Amino acid sequence: MKFLIQRDRLIQSVQDVMRAVSSRTTIPILTGIKIVAANDGVTFTGSDSDVSIESFIPKEEDGDELVEIKELGSIVLQAKFFSEIVKKLPMDTVEIEVLNQFQTVIRSGKSEFNLIGLDPDEYPHLPQISEDNILKIPTDILKTLIRQTVFAVSTLETRPILTGVNCKVENGKLYCIATDSHRLAMRTAAIDTQSEETYNIVIPGKSLNELNKILDDTNEPVEIVITENQVLFRTKHLLFLSRLLEGSYPDTSRLIPNESKTEITINTKEFLQAIDRASLLAREGRNPNVVKLTTIGSGLVEISSNTPEVGKVVEQVQSQAIDGEELKISFSAKYMMDALKALEGLEIRVNFSGAMRPFVIHPVNDESILQLILPVRTY
Amino acid sequence: MKFLIQRDRLIQSVQDVMRAVSSRTTIPILTGIKIVAANDGVTFTGSDSDVSIESFIPKEEDGDELVEIKELGSIVLQAKFFSEIVKKLPMDTVEIEVLNQFQTVIRSGKSEFNLIGLDPDEYPHLPQISEDNILKIPTDILKTLIRQTVFAVSTLETRPILTGVNCKVENGKLYCIATDSHRLAMRTAAIDTQSEETYNIVIPGKSLNELNKILDDTNEPVEIVITENQVLFRTKHLLFLSRLLEGSYPDTSRLIPNESKTEITINTKEFLQAIDRASLLAREGRNPNVVKLTTIGSGLVEISSNTPEVGKVVEQVQSQAIDGEELKISFSAKYMMDALKALEGLEIRVNFSGAMRPFVIHPVNDESILQLILPVRTY
Repeated sequence: MKFLIQRDRLIQSVQDVMRAVSSRTTIPILTGIKIVAANDGVTFTGSDSDVSIESFIPKEEDGDELVEIKELGSIVLQAKFFSEIVKKLPMDTVEIEVLNQFQTVIRSGKSEFNLIGLDPDEYPHLPQISEDNILKIPTDILKTLIRQTVFAVSTLETRPILTGVNCKVENGKLYCIATDSHRLAMRTAAIDTQSEETYNIVIPGKSLNELNKILDDTNEPVEIVITENQVLFRTKHLLFLSRLLEGSYPDTSRLIPNESKTEITINTKEFLQAIDRASLLAREGRNPNVVKLTTIGSGLVEISSNTPEVGKVVEQVQSQAIDGEELKISFSAKYMMDALKALEGLEIRVNFSGAMRPFVIHPVNDESILQLILPVRTY
Repeated sequence: MKFLIQRDRLIQSVQDVMRAVSSRTTIPILTGIKIVAANDGVTFTGSDSDVSIESFIPKEEDGDELVEIKELGSIVLQAKFFSEIVKKLPMDTVEIEVLNQFQTVIRSGKSEFNLIGLDPDEYPHLPQISEDNILKIPTDILKTLIRQTVFAVSTLETRPILTGVNCKVENGKLYCIATDSHRLAMRTAAIDTQSEETYNIVIPGKSLNELNKILDDTNEPVEIVITENQVLFRTKHLLFLSRLLEGSYPDTSRLIPNESKTEITINTKEFLQAIDRASLLAREGRNPNVVKLTTIGSGLVEISSNTPEVGKVVEQVQSQAIDGEELKISFSAKYMMDALKALEGLEIRVNFSGAMRPFVIHPVNDESILQLILPVRTY
């Protein structure tokens, strides 16, 4: 194997596939990055066996020569060293050559690295995905869906299924739902599908976080292929494969209240900042991180918290409208701030159905996203 | 106590004095920030009893009203909460008022915090410094002196005196020296003094790091007062007091070689980057982080490292000149990179007196700064 490659593209590809490489793997070959030089370009692969990422650099793009293949072949190089080296090479062009016995030379300017590589035949093959039905969604919308739901997955391993995001495809719509059983985030978007097939899968939150980081913020489509135990995301030069979580996701539709006894319409930023301030004194004590919301008439909402040893904070926020019953309710400031940050739009609508019942937050005039929070009993 | 204050100035002062506050103190009152409202302005104090920082905000500056004093007085507020609160207040102006029993109200816009304060009479008084001799040095030069030496202090507590920077004042000059016994950094600068008095003190490296962070990069003078066990730094509105390390600093002048057998003149950045790259493969193995330098004729310097399990790297750097004997020497890449980053100037001169002897690095044509490194025996 021998090729010349543009350093900037090399750095980007290595950085992307590194997201799948774990230093804690029990399979030694997976501490490496696989490099394959073919006639049409070079492919880099990283994997921790749960997530695999492939990045392809074509020989040519938009008239620019990115790679000059001098000899076909493949190698696996220690990811930790290889990724550090490419970042610090002195020149814009890099030559990578495999000598005998997997010994690999990386040359750039007057700098020459000799790395002891690993046998590429030992690197596991990515599973073959049968591409019967390809779903398509714009990349930026997929990124938004991930951002608006994935923060709500459980971080505890007590119920592993809740560490994933439940993704359902039905009637041309993609539903993403995440809950840690104290709060829930749901977002719906249109998805392009060629068949009537429905899907109901659970993708690990960790995989979606990594996927979100390597996807560019464009409106180019991402292709999605779902199989029984894997999901594949594909863009122009990237391929992201994740295993799915096994088991059935709880039916969350029953959790979402239909009725509303108090409805508050309020500016998102002002509400968020008031809760942020109130949470400053709510870190300790009997109810850590819990703030109280009270309707006090004239469209005013009072946000407060009280930790006897430290002090208390009270703040009034003018709402756009308060409809329905008076209300006193306590909830986690962190959950509320997470939910408000995930929402788009200047104004939100919060629907309460009593101090002990879950409440629901929507952007005003947007039903495609929903955040649900369970209150905390404090008195 | 009651006053109105500009939020931006309040945030800056609190942030500065917070650098002296430690959450691990055994003296409960020192977890707080002391606030004193006097006729001419407000003073904030933080201390961990080793370092004390005072920041003063005058009533008026350049025609702007910064503080409106409504009632004189003082209070101590929990630093952790107070510093978080001021950063998140909604309006440009903040009102701070002490009610009965140290209860303190912080108001800004519609936000109102009630903090349980501590008795200001329990806060230790800063030691009185007799100001017989005031030394003066421009702030930016003091910051450079700190930056160019403090990184070389020892981080081990086996010889506590080496965790400090040795500062000497003699004949209108300030000498700063730091060593961890494997490398040494020295910088000299002119200092303005009104007497013939000489000083030889050791300031904790930690104190100088904090001082460097709170000093602005101006050429306004810093006033320095040295006593038997304290040093005071003072700028317009800041006062920084540190205890000194006890014990005598080793005589480092003997360490610095007078002779030079090989002299290399080289571009600082090219040399630094080559060593950085060579160090990438030198992290593990028998000599962690050690790189080798070899003169190979034609003014070329070869930088290399070799870790059998991982691989090797070789790079040639063109020097401006190599004078004297041929040389093969190994040294810590980290120490060399620290030294090169601390130097000013495009070109450096390295003087070696043999593979087993300490070597010295200067900027070309600048004797006011010196970096010394002990080589590593590898063969």
